[in-house]
Amino acid sequence: MNLINGVAGDAVSVRDRGLAYGDGVFRTFPVRGGKPALWQRQYTKLAHDCKAIAIDCPPSATLENDLAQIGASEPDCVVKIIITRGDSARGYAPPSEPKPTRVVTSSALPDYPKHYAETGVRTHLCRIRLAAQPALAGIKHLNRLENVLARAEWSDPAVTEGLMCDADDNVIGGTMSNLFIGKNSKLLTPELKRCGVSGVMRELVIELARAHDIPLQIADIGIDELLAADELFVVNSVIGLWPVAALDRKTWNKGALTARMQQWIVNVQSD
Amino acid sequence: MNLINGVAGDAVSVRDRGLAYGDGVFRTFPVRGGKPALWQRQYTKLAHDCKAIAIDCPPSATLENDLAQIGASEPDCVVKIIITRGDSARGYAPPSEPKPTRVVTSSALPDYPKHYAETGVRTHLCRIRLAAQPALAGIKHLNRLENVLARAEWSDPAVTEGLMCDADDNVIGGTMSNLFIGKNSKLLTPELKRCGVSGVMRELVIELARAHDIPLQIADIGIDELLAADELFVVNSVIGLWPVAALDRKTWNKGALTARMQQWIVNVQSD
Repeated sequence: MNLINGVAGDAVSVRDRGLAYGDGVFRTFPVRGGKPALWQRQYTKLAHDCKAIAIDCPPSATLENDLAQIGASEPDCVVKIIITRGDSARGYAPPSEPKPTRVVTSSALPDYPKHYAETGVRTHLCRIRLAAQPALAGIKHLNRLENVLARAEWSDPAVTEGLMCDADDNVIGGTMSNLFIGKNSKLLTPELKRCGVSGVMRELVIELARAHDIPLQIADIGIDELLAADELFVVNSVIGLWPVAALDRKTWNKGALTARMQQWIVNVQSD
Repeated sequence: MNLINGVAGDAVSVRDRGLAYGDGVFRTFPVRGGKPALWQRQYTKLAHDCKAIAIDCPPSATLENDLAQIGASEPDCVVKIIITRGDSARGYAPPSEPKPTRVVTSSALPDYPKHYAETGVRTHLCRIRLAAQPALAGIKHLNRLENVLARAEWSDPAVTEGLMCDADDNVIGGTMSNLFIGKNSKLLTPELKRCGVSGVMRELVIELARAHDIPLQIADIGIDELLAADELFVVNSVIGLWPVAALDRKTWNKGALTARMQQWIVNVQSD
């Protein structure tokens, strides 16, 4: 099911700035039993990201109406919300009175193999680097060619995710996920001030670590530091948490912190 | 008039990867008397850019059919061609059998004040920097949020263009144009190996300089070097050539190289 500005449909205007320039933001999350997972957190992020590029975010109630429509017809699905700056005449200048476009689409919940969550996924270290752009770092905007090119680097179905670095050999995250590493009973996650996307699940993991007195640091993480980690995991709203079992030839066992965090996330999701 | 895959229409699929990820490329150029300006050059660039991100570019004859349709109904207009990787299921992975989307739209030819070309335009030095991404540098792809944010930095109608630098204080070009500077009877234009868009008009200027024995260098140009230039101009396919009369408080007179290049471009355009 697709809703465009609340109306069922399959298409957006050919003059939409989302298409022309990637001038918008998005979120992706599961709906289970008709209920969008961690919705307040998703909305907070959406509103934050809209504000960061000066797009008026629709009120939460408006989106909740859309989500209720979708939840009624597809109680279990993945929902993607896109907010663009709307239509405009040709040219980069934002329109003086923008009318943002609101797109809410649903897809089937993915049926990932159980071992992804149980023993972990194999990953690939992507060759393409994330460019440093402080003005857009952390934001889930529609300029995602780097992620597309990264994901196109491998076709081996045994490899599930790619890890991406910046030009200075700092690891930033997965193509579709945020990354955490465990070392000496502490967690680390990459600083996202220059590039990367700050997801809802990343924030949840940070909060859960604090709530359970697990030391957690947000820092630059070099490739060497990554390879020397005791354990690794990736998170996003759709997958939850997957241990990283391998990065190219380097392998890891599922770690103790990973197992604990995974359980805490499951507990939050089933609240 | 809008043609989507050759068919008149106003909309593209809500699942198009151009909207989802900016996963595509584009070109913009004038049509005059039903004839697309410098079409062979535009097509060569389009095909090059498609190849750079592994999208199958439609054959030139297919696009020429679209352009003929538009030229017949609007002999004088600006045409924009967008090629995306087409629809796909959710996720960054390119589809195994992509069907690119071809969008050709027309807009009215802009009616710029005469003094833009005659005496020059006022410009603004943009605060946002262009991120260094060698994998995408030079390509006219759909990830253009940096340009949008740059253009949103000013609303003074007396300012026509913004100049953008990279994070190392090298000037790269205008928000919608390529930049040339004249110094000691030589031309310089920014290196576009890390960021920026390499336009058709930039290539034409480089060729015209060579043809007329004007020394021209492609190089990194620092802000200091920019401000110390004898003359400055910006080019793109729609505007042709505009002298830069001012960058914030710094002003220039229209230079001799600028005037000569402008005339050569007019000659090519009226061929």
